[in-house]
Amino acid sequence: MKRIGVFTSGGDAPGMNAAIRAVVRQAYALGVEVIGIRRGYAGMILGEMLPLGVRDVANILQRGGTILLTARSQEFMTEEGRAKAAEKLRAAGIEGLVAIGGDGTFRGAMRLLEEHRIPVVGVPGTIDNDLYGTDYTIGFDTAVNTALEAIDRIRDTAASHERVFFIEVMGRHAGFIALDVGLAGGAEVIALPEEPVDPQAVAETLLASQARGKTSSIVVVAEGAYPGGAAGLLEAIRAHMALEARVTVLGHIQRGGAPTAKDRVLASRLGAAAVEALTGGASGVMVGEVEGEVEITPLKEAVERRKDIRRDLLALSRVLAL
Amino acid sequence: MKRIGVFTSGGDAPGMNAAIRAVVRQAYALGVEVIGIRRGYAGMILGEMLPLGVRDVANILQRGGTILLTARSQEFMTEEGRAKAAEKLRAAGIEGLVAIGGDGTFRGAMRLLEEHRIPVVGVPGTIDNDLYGTDYTIGFDTAVNTALEAIDRIRDTAASHERVFFIEVMGRHAGFIALDVGLAGGAEVIALPEEPVDPQAVAETLLASQARGKTSSIVVVAEGAYPGGAAGLLEAIRAHMALEARVTVLGHIQRGGAPTAKDRVLASRLGAAAVEALTGGASGVMVGEVEGEVEITPLKEAVERRKDIRRDLLALSRVLAL
Amino acid sequence: MKRIGVFTSGGDAPGMNAAIRAVVRQAYALGVEVIGIRRGYAGMILGEMLPLGVRDVANILQRGGTILLTARSQEFMTEEGRAKAAEKLRAAGIEGLVAIGGDGTFRGAMRLLEEHRIPVVGVPGTIDNDLYGTDYTIGFDTAVNTALEAIDRIRDTAASHERVFFIEVMGRHAGFIALDVGLAGGAEVIALPEEPVDPQAVAETLLASQARGKTSSIVVVAEGAYPGGAAGLLEAIRAHMALEARVTVLGHIQRGGAPTAKDRVLASRLGAAAVEALTGGASGVMVGEVEGEVEITPLKEAVERRKDIRRDLLALSRVLAL
Amino acid sequence: MKRIGVFTSGGDAPGMNAAIRAVVRQAYALGVEVIGIRRGYAGMILGEMLPLGVRDVANILQRGGTILLTARSQEFMTEEGRAKAAEKLRAAGIEGLVAIGGDGTFRGAMRLLEEHRIPVVGVPGTIDNDLYGTDYTIGFDTAVNTALEAIDRIRDTAASHERVFFIEVMGRHAGFIALDVGLAGGAEVIALPEEPVDPQAVAETLLASQARGKTSSIVVVAEGAYPGGAAGLLEAIRAHMALEARVTVLGHIQRGGAPTAKDRVLASRLGAAAVEALTGGASGVMVGEVEGEVEITPLKEAVERRKDIRRDLLALSRVLAL
Repeated sequence: MKRIGVFTSGGDAPGMNAAIRAVVRQAYALGVEVIGIRRGYAGMILGEMLPLGVRDVANILQRGGTILLTARSQEFMTEEGRAKAAEKLRAAGIEGLVAIGGDGTFRGAMRLLEEHRIPVVGVPGTIDNDLYGTDYTIGFDTAVNTALEAIDRIRDTAASHERVFFIEVMGRHAGFIALDVGLAGGAEVIALPEEPVDPQAVAETLLASQARGKTSSIVVVAEGAYPGGAAGLLEAIRAHMALEARVTVLGHIQRGGAPTAKDRVLASRLGAAAVEALTGGASGVMVGEVEGEVEITPLKEAVERRKDIRRDLLALSRVLAL
Repeated sequence: MKRIGVFTSGGDAPGMNAAIRAVVRQAYALGVEVIGIRRGYAGMILGEMLPLGVRDVANILQRGGTILLTARSQEFMTEEGRAKAAEKLRAAGIEGLVAIGGDGTFRGAMRLLEEHRIPVVGVPGTIDNDLYGTDYTIGFDTAVNTALEAIDRIRDTAASHERVFFIEVMGRHAGFIALDVGLAGGAEVIALPEEPVDPQAVAETLLASQARGKTSSIVVVAEGAYPGGAAGLLEAIRAHMALEARVTVLGHIQRGGAPTAKDRVLASRLGAAAVEALTGGASGVMVGEVEGEVEITPLKEAVERRKDIRRDLLALSRVLAL
Repeated sequence: MKRIGVFTSGGDAPGMNAAIRAVVRQAYALGVEVIGIRRGYAGMILGEMLPLGVRDVANILQRGGTILLTARSQEFMTEEGRAKAAEKLRAAGIEGLVAIGGDGTFRGAMRLLEEHRIPVVGVPGTIDNDLYGTDYTIGFDTAVNTALEAIDRIRDTAASHERVFFIEVMGRHAGFIALDVGLAGGAEVIALPEEPVDPQAVAETLLASQARGKTSSIVVVAEGAYPGGAAGLLEAIRAHMALEARVTVLGHIQRGGAPTAKDRVLASRLGAAAVEALTGGASGVMVGEVEGEVEITPLKEAVERRKDIRRDLLALSRVLAL
Repeated sequence: MKRIGVFTSGGDAPGMNAAIRAVVRQAYALGVEVIGIRRGYAGMILGEMLPLGVRDVANILQRGGTILLTARSQEFMTEEGRAKAAEKLRAAGIEGLVAIGGDGTFRGAMRLLEEHRIPVVGVPGTIDNDLYGTDYTIGFDTAVNTALEAIDRIRDTAASHERVFFIEVMGRHAGFIALDVGLAGGAEVIALPEEPVDPQAVAETLLASQARGKTSSIVVVAEGAYPGGAAGLLEAIRAHMALEARVTVLGHIQRGGAPTAKDRVLASRLGAAAVEALTGGASGVMVGEVEGEVEITPLKEAVERRKDIRRDLLALSRVLAL
């Protein structure tokens, strides 16, 4: 392989730039050229490409977002769109792709591989941590720490006003962020999509907590844990107890910011590993870190197999939030 | 004066603890005892008081929230309630009060002074910066920096996705936070309660910005700038242009966290000055910092006179957000 | 077991308080009383003890340092000292100990167990990450992120002035902090105690980097990597090249601050696991997290076996710092 | 005026980029072209110049350092050097200069004006805050908050180990940083270049503090407050008391990082004001902010007149650090 492409797609995640840097520099070390494709699949179809040299990725290691931009593409959902994309890649002499993103990104890459035989290796870049085949995705650790910092701030107010706060964190289908943030933030209740959430049980927990003399509480709610998110859950609880509580939706602040050390190290490692895998002949796979080692997982498995949350940590959070 | 009381009331603000520390230690230096009153006027009525010595306020300078707690009190709105409060103060031998809070706090203090002749000096503690007689209120600088940090994060995502974000910051009646955050955050548009907000004009600004090649924008909206806040403004704008945009409401994260250097210095200075004023015979006044010097303003003026935003900075923000 | 003691000893580490909280609340859930011992072994000898209930550890999860304080004790190094300590523990009805700290702490605990048969379980709390039997020690992740934030700041200045900076991080015998910080901070050179450091080779790396057009560089040096630390290494390099460079020793800022999410989760988990192990009959062991699971390792091994740094990451850092 | 130049010189300061952005965009609004001069006076002599348009300064508002770089220049100290610089400016059609920096920068600008009649307006950009004619310099607020955060971390360790820490902050000739950081950080002692520092008196303060039961203390020392800085002062104190204490030199971390809101607002305002002043015919002056308003001061005064520290705040720090 003489020339590979790299792109980011889907929701941005802190550490994507660190991964791009690693792809470019590892490729350089192997004597392979790198072409950056802007705006994900949308830009691929339009041929928005630029060569990336070692100096082009200087000073981006610590930047949030993605210098290659990201976008959604309806056209890529069609066979014609993908054919156009494949044509542009061939015209540019790109022999293989490193795709940085989440499950939508990987599904697209799989179809490009199937339909047009373009070799592709995925790098897990999403704050949600919902990919099988890697213990952590790039961006997760930063998102958790950003949300935690917000909760630490809110706790100051909650304690001063002796109030209950419902804090909604990201996670439509996965509760990884909510679980870590809840445990690290000392939340009394953590509501996850993976576990049934019973408003009456939550009410009882809060009442018991009040009875023990606790005057303020934090309830962490993954956005997909209950219909209507944190606000929906609060309303449902009010059928079971009189509860004055505030709702804060952390929202997009969880996506941005300089990546943590862990996310930079992970992104550096996986970006480099993706290039090694791709140039070594691998394709249709994702590189991930499992129990400290780089592992390779078929994209299909990465996307389809369910990575479960640690239920022992959920149980622990209940013991510790006395 | 041999013994004074100190309390915090209304919304908590970073730096309140630094002010409490300064009150206690300045009083100690002057040979005056300090009684802390918990939960604002509610606790005053119930006699929730504790002596505060110099060691009791150790290690709180950097803490957000208020160690004295804060609460609302319906009972204090009644004459009976205030009579009870006055009685408790007298029973505790409290000869004067330092009231840390915003306009609601000061209105209560004024009535206590009128009806029961209890000397009181106010310290401006509110993130809103909406008190006359001080260039800055305690907590404002921290709130602005917290909101700014959130905007910096969101800008990473906005730039990567080439999107427009509407970010709602605190400020029901005052646009101080929105103005400083918007200017410091490079917002294309800043919507304030003090200025009429015309959705059509905002749409034109955003369209012109797009025409100049800008692919992402930040609109900062004070919660009271438009009916429905940031979401309301976005909807109104959509009558004038097709606009895909995200809304983030920063909410209560703006209240908490360790105070900035500026807020700690201001709180230290004003807490000490309040004790000097009170023990020196002043009453019915607020201590503030005006053009670098401590100044004394009647509580009535502090609450009733309007402190205007800097319209030159608003104009500047338009020049700089090209 | 009806009553256990908990203490912190050695250098403080962020997350020690989270571990204390977990010990107290897990013990409560199991019906076991907890006595906090202040000032480590020094306080044990003096009988400085206080009961810790669930409310006593409220609001400490996010605090740096240790509420139980820490100290060195010459007296505990003697047989008489340890006999006194054991006597105090027995007098207080303490049937087992949770020892939070690093290798010095564990060596002391082992002698207490040998000589006085006091059951003890260790919790790895040290920023150095130099204990066998756990992938990470409590405090390491926070220290790495604190050092990284400092390097991000220094890089601004290094880039603006086109200068080389030598930054010394903690690590007398272990390079874990230096390696992660260096890789995450994009250091051109990382000097570790585990690898021979050749000033001439470093000079060549820096000269090659300059030749490639790089105008500023960061060299990360573990304090024990070279005689005289970062300053010593710089001087040695000057024998091989003319190099104007600045030295910054990060020092004690790496110990403090609110723990990261990862450190809080780890501390919560290991604190709870220690109580389960101790009350379940384990002794003379450390609880650690290995490949995501709690594991038990004899204290002797934890202290004596060498945990090696990841040499593949060191190699990776060289590829990426082009 | 049709075309102006802008450059940064001397030590970098957070907010310099925000000032550059404001210069470029304000000039654009006035129909004036801007040329960026790289590497300060060194680059001026070499003719290192590039046109700066409104998009060239996008996304730099929040960045530390300076995109125009900064350097020292021996050659500019000579008449020949300055003649070359003037020639390059004329060749580039630059009719006036905005000089962002501290006193060294302004002295150079004054000579360029005298010898070659090149109009120049200064913008105060230095973390030291040691310029007359502005209440605050750009970068000061960020440097103070960075140092304060470091002290907050160190206090965790100081409190846990019950130790005394000597922390050296920047300030060879001026104690502004030390004073604000010391007051905001609750330092027991603050040593400034502006006040005689008596080791015996410091020893007595620390002994008195210990006698009152304080187990840990922070001493903040400006680097120029005592021969040898913090380490020198500690040694001198040891002649008067047995004192185990740690020294931390914060160093270059104080220069970098994203600017605070205050620094961004100040930089935006002064950058714009400099362009207005320069194009309006002003020269040989610095724009500053005094009591909330933009003011113009002759460069000679800005550099030569002494801005004094607030001695009342120093006195206050002694009352509060009980």
